[in-house]
Amino acid sequence: MSLLAGARVDNLAPSLAEYMAENRGFVDEALDRYVPGAHNEPRLLHEAMRYSLFAGGKRLRPILAIASFEIVGDSNYGVMPLAAALECVHTYSLIHDDLPAMDDDDLRRGKPTSHKKYGEAVAILAGDALITLAFEILSSPEFTRMFPHGRVLAVIRDVAQASGSTGLIAGQVWDMWFEGRVADEQAVNRIILNKTGALIRSSLTSGARLAGANLPQLKIFSIYGEKLGMAFQIRDDLLDLEGDTERLGKNVQKDVKRGKATYPSLFGADKARNMIDNLLSEAANAIEPLGKRADTLRLLTEYIGQRMN
Amino acid sequence: MSLLAGARVDNLAPSLAEYMAENRGFVDEALDRYVPGAHNEPRLLHEAMRYSLFAGGKRLRPILAIASFEIVGDSNYGVMPLAAALECVHTYSLIHDDLPAMDDDDLRRGKPTSHKKYGEAVAILAGDALITLAFEILSSPEFTRMFPHGRVLAVIRDVAQASGSTGLIAGQVWDMWFEGRVADEQAVNRIILNKTGALIRSSLTSGARLAGANLPQLKIFSIYGEKLGMAFQIRDDLLDLEGDTERLGKNVQKDVKRGKATYPSLFGADKARNMIDNLLSEAANAIEPLGKRADTLRLLTEYIGQRMN
Repeated sequence: MSLLAGARVDNLAPSLAEYMAENRGFVDEALDRYVPGAHNEPRLLHEAMRYSLFAGGKRLRPILAIASFEIVGDSNYGVMPLAAALECVHTYSLIHDDLPAMDDDDLRRGKPTSHKKYGEAVAILAGDALITLAFEILSSPEFTRMFPHGRVLAVIRDVAQASGSTGLIAGQVWDMWFEGRVADEQAVNRIILNKTGALIRSSLTSGARLAGANLPQLKIFSIYGEKLGMAFQIRDDLLDLEGDTERLGKNVQKDVKRGKATYPSLFGADKARNMIDNLLSEAANAIEPLGKRADTLRLLTEYIGQRMN
Repeated sequence: MSLLAGARVDNLAPSLAEYMAENRGFVDEALDRYVPGAHNEPRLLHEAMRYSLFAGGKRLRPILAIASFEIVGDSNYGVMPLAAALECVHTYSLIHDDLPAMDDDDLRRGKPTSHKKYGEAVAILAGDALITLAFEILSSPEFTRMFPHGRVLAVIRDVAQASGSTGLIAGQVWDMWFEGRVADEQAVNRIILNKTGALIRSSLTSGARLAGANLPQLKIFSIYGEKLGMAFQIRDDLLDLEGDTERLGKNVQKDVKRGKATYPSLFGADKARNMIDNLLSEAANAIEPLGKRADTLRLLTEYIGQRMN
């Protein structure tokens, strides 16, 4: 069973592409195990949950959790349920952010958004079901029996805080609030740190916690995750400004049209690129003390700066 | 600190009204501790969370959790965070159910619904924040340090399952799906068992679990909760049919107008009253083996059959 596969870090494929493809497979397998099949009642709800979950995401948050878990714990044994739970949280946030009352997007990952396909009511409920499922997974006996229970509780706490009213949800509130309003650099930082940074940081720290990381290690993953998450979001905003719909699988230039407060729309593409570089070198510096063990994260850091979708 | 107050069951006030009033006070205090104040950023979000939480609910689910905890554990020491978390789940479900895309209600607990007061986006996010906060509370060190960690994880699992895609959310999906459609008794049972029964049952079983209940005890609370929850919902539907807006704090006769599949609207008030009586005597029978210790639940059972709001 690959869910319990114990591939050691030093056996991992050297290329990031292979590492990501392999782990995407593990994560998808775990998601498929935990999300009720579309034949389970209520069928439409479970179909909608799976529609958004299996729309071909990069699985970045799961992969970051797997990577930090492996760095601290030397194997990936037992981390896949956490990886799946993080993807449930991420997907719920996308479904709700796309709703007409929020960002009103009709295209996501190259397909109609959940409310376009299933209507608003089912989309809201599918999102609700996914955030709830995340905590069902994290408290399931198959998962909790593999780790000291105090550690599992710390992981649940970490994910819940990152997802809550002072994390991810705060980011979405500010993101909407600043639409068409004057924002300074501090405001933009606060938006992206919460909207994107919080869950990406939590992916790294929860993976590390689950593997038994000590406080200095957690501090390292926390700083790395924060910087990486912010760089990821600015890159996202840059792609919205310059990218094309086909490659991104979502409509572009929405931010400018809607007067969103983003780095590139407020300070220009050059300053945004500069900011990404700065954040990524801060991220790279943070993991310096981890030595060669953190090479996967170094490759991921590079990838974040260059990704085209 | 009343959050940690160790009132023994045999010291409790004999009257149900006093018992409920006292515990409402404890629950509100716990909620006030756990929900960020309206001066915390984002202020509008926290204000909206508090607006719905402190709109004067009965706190039935918290009180059921406190009662089952006391029956198994002899004191209420440590149960208030669980009670508060259950109220967060319940309030989130009300906010989302009232949304225009769902039941489109504009009055709840005598006040404008969340989306009427704060707009749809903030209402959706306030609901999201409340379900997430429930799991943040249940994994907070102040709570988890008071109990064996395996027990806390079982409580989290219990609440997450009851709230998820095969519990509370399934009930809302079916409730909407059957609007204007032909429903039989089996369909109505399935709606109310999930929409209302699941979280009321979980309030009783999670309280009992937290106090260390054994399997036969859990079985008793599970059957009792299921029957009580279904009776509670039929009583609710009867009040919608016959009650008045002022006393209920919400608009009435909505179910008939909207073609909702409820017991009284499909089978008439008499058969509904009959069904409530049957369910409540099944509930009372279930807790028979608990003896005098379960007297609070007996008073609560009576109250559910007679409540006027």
